[in-house]
Amino acid sequence: MPRSVITLTTDFGPSSPYVAQMKGVILAIHSDVELVDVTHAVPHQQILAGAVALVDVYHHFPLGTIHIAVVDPGVGTNRAIALAEIDGHFFVAPDNGLLGLVARRTPPSRIVRVEACEFWDQSISHTFHGRDIMAPVAAHLARGVEFARFGPSQPVIQELDVPDAVVTTNRAEGTVLTVDSFGNLATNLDRDMLPRSVSELTLQIDGHEKQVVPFVATYAQRPADQVVSLVSSSRRIEIAVVNGNASRQLGVVPGSQITLQW
Amino acid sequence: MPRSVITLTTDFGPSSPYVAQMKGVILAIHSDVELVDVTHAVPHQQILAGAVALVDVYHHFPLGTIHIAVVDPGVGTNRAIALAEIDGHFFVAPDNGLLGLVARRTPPSRIVRVEACEFWDQSISHTFHGRDIMAPVAAHLARGVEFARFGPSQPVIQELDVPDAVVTTNRAEGTVLTVDSFGNLATNLDRDMLPRSVSELTLQIDGHEKQVVPFVATYAQRPADQVVSLVSSSRRIEIAVVNGNASRQLGVVPGSQITLQW
Amino acid sequence: MPRSVITLTTDFGPSSPYVAQMKGVILAIHSDVELVDVTHAVPHQQILAGAVALVDVYHHFPLGTIHIAVVDPGVGTNRAIALAEIDGHFFVAPDNGLLGLVARRTPPSRIVRVEACEFWDQSISHTFHGRDIMAPVAAHLARGVEFARFGPSQPVIQELDVPDAVVTTNRAEGTVLTVDSFGNLATNLDRDMLPRSVSELTLQIDGHEKQVVPFVATYAQRPADQVVSLVSSSRRIEIAVVNGNASRQLGVVPGSQITLQW
Repeated sequence: MPRSVITLTTDFGPSSPYVAQMKGVILAIHSDVELVDVTHAVPHQQILAGAVALVDVYHHFPLGTIHIAVVDPGVGTNRAIALAEIDGHFFVAPDNGLLGLVARRTPPSRIVRVEACEFWDQSISHTFHGRDIMAPVAAHLARGVEFARFGPSQPVIQELDVPDAVVTTNRAEGTVLTVDSFGNLATNLDRDMLPRSVSELTLQIDGHEKQVVPFVATYAQRPADQVVSLVSSSRRIEIAVVNGNASRQLGVVPGSQITLQW
Repeated sequence: MPRSVITLTTDFGPSSPYVAQMKGVILAIHSDVELVDVTHAVPHQQILAGAVALVDVYHHFPLGTIHIAVVDPGVGTNRAIALAEIDGHFFVAPDNGLLGLVARRTPPSRIVRVEACEFWDQSISHTFHGRDIMAPVAAHLARGVEFARFGPSQPVIQELDVPDAVVTTNRAEGTVLTVDSFGNLATNLDRDMLPRSVSELTLQIDGHEKQVVPFVATYAQRPADQVVSLVSSSRRIEIAVVNGNASRQLGVVPGSQITLQW
Repeated sequence: MPRSVITLTTDFGPSSPYVAQMKGVILAIHSDVELVDVTHAVPHQQILAGAVALVDVYHHFPLGTIHIAVVDPGVGTNRAIALAEIDGHFFVAPDNGLLGLVARRTPPSRIVRVEACEFWDQSISHTFHGRDIMAPVAAHLARGVEFARFGPSQPVIQELDVPDAVVTTNRAEGTVLTVDSFGNLATNLDRDMLPRSVSELTLQIDGHEKQVVPFVATYAQRPADQVVSLVSSSRRIEIAVVNGNASRQLGVVPGSQITLQW
């Protein structure tokens, strides 16, 4: 049997010792796992950014991978924690919308509300359920505990309030979801919303002045400092500046409205 | 036999290639280990911050875990390197106080001064004993070399000069030990120093103006931007700003004096 | 057979989810690997900085380790991807000079141009060959696919344009290659270029005013804030400020010219 893989996605900040606490808890329950960090740089308490990281990353992992996600502004309240099987993968997360984009991509095949405290840490803090509940649940699942034993079945998980893209015959309106470390802007528009033949687009951001930008296959097709649009490696429409930083140059942050015309 | 776990705590900075050099050295000696980063964001040469990270994290790992810690301003001088067994875990670190908080929590059961150079790298740099001495010692220990073979026994390890908390019937005086990535202030005061029934505290920092703050179970009990006190996930008394940054808002840094009255 | 080790060196930024996508792809092909991050903080698209990280780190890993390196400004163009065996290690990288310093240290024993697409991801993005080509190639190599099957043999890899150091009887002129997180300056000068007996050097940077600095064995030999020169843990001549930041204090960045006289 191959080793289980457990991934971690949090807003704890890079190199936070809280992540190591979770890993220690997992290894103390089940040592035969491969632990992989997805990211710990989700902006604090921004559920949408966490949801985007999850949906863009999870499906690259082997089937059966267990993904723990902790962006949890409601920790200590009575918000639920969900364990869900979606698209052949397992997810443990606060039920606050963090799994919303994954579940929109593929409907969950089963969900439980995590309530069976015999699988939790013996003392539960009020502020860190990622370590005291989610990490032990993932570790027990990895060592073979039956899915249904973690709590009662529930029919749906919390949806995430992302505005849908609006597409007409000659324009698409969407939202900037995230900015990566290169300053590239990832949107909720995807390649199939645009005509196959398009080679340039009129770009407008937050109602500011329009500009015409080429729609290219790759950054290297244009000189440095030019604004371009392209299909990201996650199949999203992306706005970038060749060898530059689109977020800074265009003054764009997550949540900015973006309109493309062709 | 489960795989050994080796953790690394350093002040090398996140994503430093020095960390990878240590991991390469370990894997070249003993490949069947799980390597876990605790943090590499200990502020440069701040032994206290490293000691806090270690004591808050180590006990979540399985018994027998080997923890390497490198905050080593005296590298290249004749400061000793210690290998210690404490609370069922193993620690390899410069003997400069870095293990002081772990050893204050539980007295070491055995300590050697690391001197047996047959377990070191063949060429020892003057500036990186983490890679050339501590990593090989940890790897050889993980592959089964006897504890006592790494050097002569020594009775104690270097203590760490942290002021003790002073507690009377209606007040506690302590120190801010660390600021986490959320801006939360962790102190050297712990929950058992306060009466069970307390629900608000008068907070004074570095002799500045006093303010009354609620003592809550969880952040979500108060509205955004309010200063609160609570018990951290590591059982420390913590000062936080709900959905905000207490360090910035209150102008507090590690070492600030904190007084709580009730 | 010990587990394979695969390392990753990129310019994706610390905690980038792109790194996790590569790890997921690897684990989905071959789960029995140890994945180690070298660094993801190579400054964006700076091939030289990536090459320095690789050459300083790789040889600490076990023989047979597979090193993936992605600093790839030409992604999506027809630049080649190379798989090379050098000094008993394997390297997968864009053939753009990134392996230039490793290959200058030890000539490659065999090289293929990566072209056999049966080992790639089924759909190849235009912008992320690290995930879609290099990660699968490394994983298939780790699970035992023959080196020669990944593409046609090629005689050389792309060299890297680093000015050579110029050494005369009483001076050495070189270049600052990188600045580490402590602000220490690593140069392309190495210890053997200076006389054994030297104990102080006259330092000049970019033609600015000269200063005499001691050549020490270790930082701790001098008081705080003093500029010193020493041999780094990677055998390079390094300029540092004791307990300070040489890069900030001296206004030096990678590429600065450095002259040492004795």
